[in-house]
Amino acid sequence: MTRNLLLIFLSIFLVGITAQAQEISAMQAPKVVSPEIASDNSVSFRVFSPSANAVTLNGSWMGYGETLPLKKEENGLWTVTIAPLNSSMYHYNFFIDGVSAIDPTNPEALRDGTHYASLLMVPGGAAKVYQLNEVPHGSLSKVWYQSPSLDSYRRMYVYTPPGYDSGKETYPVLYLLHGAGGDEDAWSALGRANDILDNLIAEGKAKPMIIVMTNGNAWQTSTLRNVPGTSAPTRETYAKFHGQFEKSLVKDVVPYIEKNYRVKATKESRALAGLSMGGAHTITASTEYPGTFGYIGVFSSGIFDPNADMAELEKKFTALKASGVTKYWVACGKDDFLMEANKRLLAVLDKTAFEHEYHESEGGHTWANWRDYLVIFAPQLFK
Amino acid sequence: MTRNLLLIFLSIFLVGITAQAQEISAMQAPKVVSPEIASDNSVSFRVFSPSANAVTLNGSWMGYGETLPLKKEENGLWTVTIAPLNSSMYHYNFFIDGVSAIDPTNPEALRDGTHYASLLMVPGGAAKVYQLNEVPHGSLSKVWYQSPSLDSYRRMYVYTPPGYDSGKETYPVLYLLHGAGGDEDAWSALGRANDILDNLIAEGKAKPMIIVMTNGNAWQTSTLRNVPGTSAPTRETYAKFHGQFEKSLVKDVVPYIEKNYRVKATKESRALAGLSMGGAHTITASTEYPGTFGYIGVFSSGIFDPNADMAELEKKFTALKASGVTKYWVACGKDDFLMEANKRLLAVLDKTAFEHEYHESEGGHTWANWRDYLVIFAPQLFK
Repeated sequence: MTRNLLLIFLSIFLVGITAQAQEISAMQAPKVVSPEIASDNSVSFRVFSPSANAVTLNGSWMGYGETLPLKKEENGLWTVTIAPLNSSMYHYNFFIDGVSAIDPTNPEALRDGTHYASLLMVPGGAAKVYQLNEVPHGSLSKVWYQSPSLDSYRRMYVYTPPGYDSGKETYPVLYLLHGAGGDEDAWSALGRANDILDNLIAEGKAKPMIIVMTNGNAWQTSTLRNVPGTSAPTRETYAKFHGQFEKSLVKDVVPYIEKNYRVKATKESRALAGLSMGGAHTITASTEYPGTFGYIGVFSSGIFDPNADMAELEKKFTALKASGVTKYWVACGKDDFLMEANKRLLAVLDKTAFEHEYHESEGGHTWANWRDYLVIFAPQLFK
Repeated sequence: MTRNLLLIFLSIFLVGITAQAQEISAMQAPKVVSPEIASDNSVSFRVFSPSANAVTLNGSWMGYGETLPLKKEENGLWTVTIAPLNSSMYHYNFFIDGVSAIDPTNPEALRDGTHYASLLMVPGGAAKVYQLNEVPHGSLSKVWYQSPSLDSYRRMYVYTPPGYDSGKETYPVLYLLHGAGGDEDAWSALGRANDILDNLIAEGKAKPMIIVMTNGNAWQTSTLRNVPGTSAPTRETYAKFHGQFEKSLVKDVVPYIEKNYRVKATKESRALAGLSMGGAHTITASTEYPGTFGYIGVFSSGIFDPNADMAELEKKFTALKASGVTKYWVACGKDDFLMEANKRLLAVLDKTAFEHEYHESEGGHTWANWRDYLVIFAPQLFK
């Protein structure tokens, strides 16, 4: 195609882009820039609506349930600029006359279970480990497997480190579990587990490893079975499936991974960690199947039941200890609503003289903490 | 854990879910069911907002730019019920006082380039081939590769069919290209290419194959490099990179796939298809590199330039024909704004007596058509 013809091609083509090329995009051409991060890390949020009555914002740097009003300018543009944020990863939602919305001009939305928020990455500094940097990237795959324990065909995400596809090496495996309300998508989308490992591996801080991110909702085959109007799981659902996910993890997922991936199939090359409900899954799976996992991480979780049979638990933790655990790592935020549960776990570990490390952070039950915990935990694995 | 202790555990746990487990979900507990599909396939949409002035809706079953108002009930619930839709896959957006939003109670959102819409799957009938059915599922992987041709490290999606991970078989490969405004995510998210192939393979209608979905924007390494406020590509950007993506596809992507996957590396086992801009990429890549692809599909595209040098094009198509193309398949919607471009392609094929098949559908430049085209095209491959 000559230069001249090329320009005609492009003219037609760019009309297409504006008019209707790939339908959805064209329907919603952005009118404003939002979010906009200034050089001092202050952030401006903008929404165009001449007719809204009120536009507010909630961000993950704010308190739970707090909202910040945007101010309407004469041209119909709503705007607010917030004080500089620390370099980190955040998420936020607008509320347009009370209706929760993602930022219509922000191309990156995060899904948490059934709901969406927009991503705000304030780059540099402490955010570097979460960012997509110019480093080798592993692959992230959505993989289906048969779970005889749950009698279902289920989906998980598998991260394979840079070099996996072209190499012959075998790798250790971290099984990484999400919390209640989440699913197999959570640790990559919200937890940035793949980006974090890409970055840690590139810096030589973590060993190359495979990460397996399952769906911990035993009654669900994958998040794709979510349909509008589906009720949240009830107490009866949780009760019916208690312990079943943990069984399927050890009896179905671990064997599937060890059959189909190039992995080191020993306790010293298997780690298990989880947040909140996933921390409870971690405690159960590790104590019910001692000798399976050599590294254990419990994030923002613990022994939920204040009247738990501590003698029984001590027996189980003693057996787990005897099976040989290289590292037991516990982390919790000072303001976490599960702090009492966390303390009960620490008490059992102390009582059984189970060597462990405890990391108490600022903040509460948040993805900001869970990402940080992974950043601290992953470098301790498989050394 | 005993039954009794389990109930305490669950009580604490369910409080957690409601209060703050996995942050984002809890912030936006759905108050209504939307969309709701009735038994006759009529669909109700609902948004709760006592204070909005106007709530409207655009869906992919409606005309471009058309909106449908929702009606406010006394309790602040906005609602509209539409006449029965044919079983198929649709997408839609709400406009809350003019602000484009996804349905806050619908867990499935689709991203098209920089913008989002909510999924509406009206199941059964013709939708069956797009749905997640109880059939074996392939894996969908996000894979990074070096592109020396573009001097960049880029991301693509690779679908491997059911059985790939555990087997030793080699497979043919379909390279499937998106349109302008889209990226490497488009053919799986909007095009349902993985679901379509899962379903066609399960029914024995298509051969098991690998599908490679690249990012056709040569100036972009992946959609992840989209940041808020990034300008749309200009005419100069398109001009600067003209032909470069096609080169990288043949020189970088095909060799990467053939090195790292179990594939049949022959022309008869390579297919190339694309929509709109991806159709133009398909025409260029196939004519510039004759002998590479044995199957070619051009969807809603063609020769964009009305003043194209037809003699030159005929020469190229004659050379392509001589290289041995098993199937050349062209499809376009009757109302497509690129119909003239499509006709120019058909004219070149006719003029060169290039054996081809032409499928003219209803409708225009839409994902509904592109999904249908894949459903018709894939079964014709590698037979």
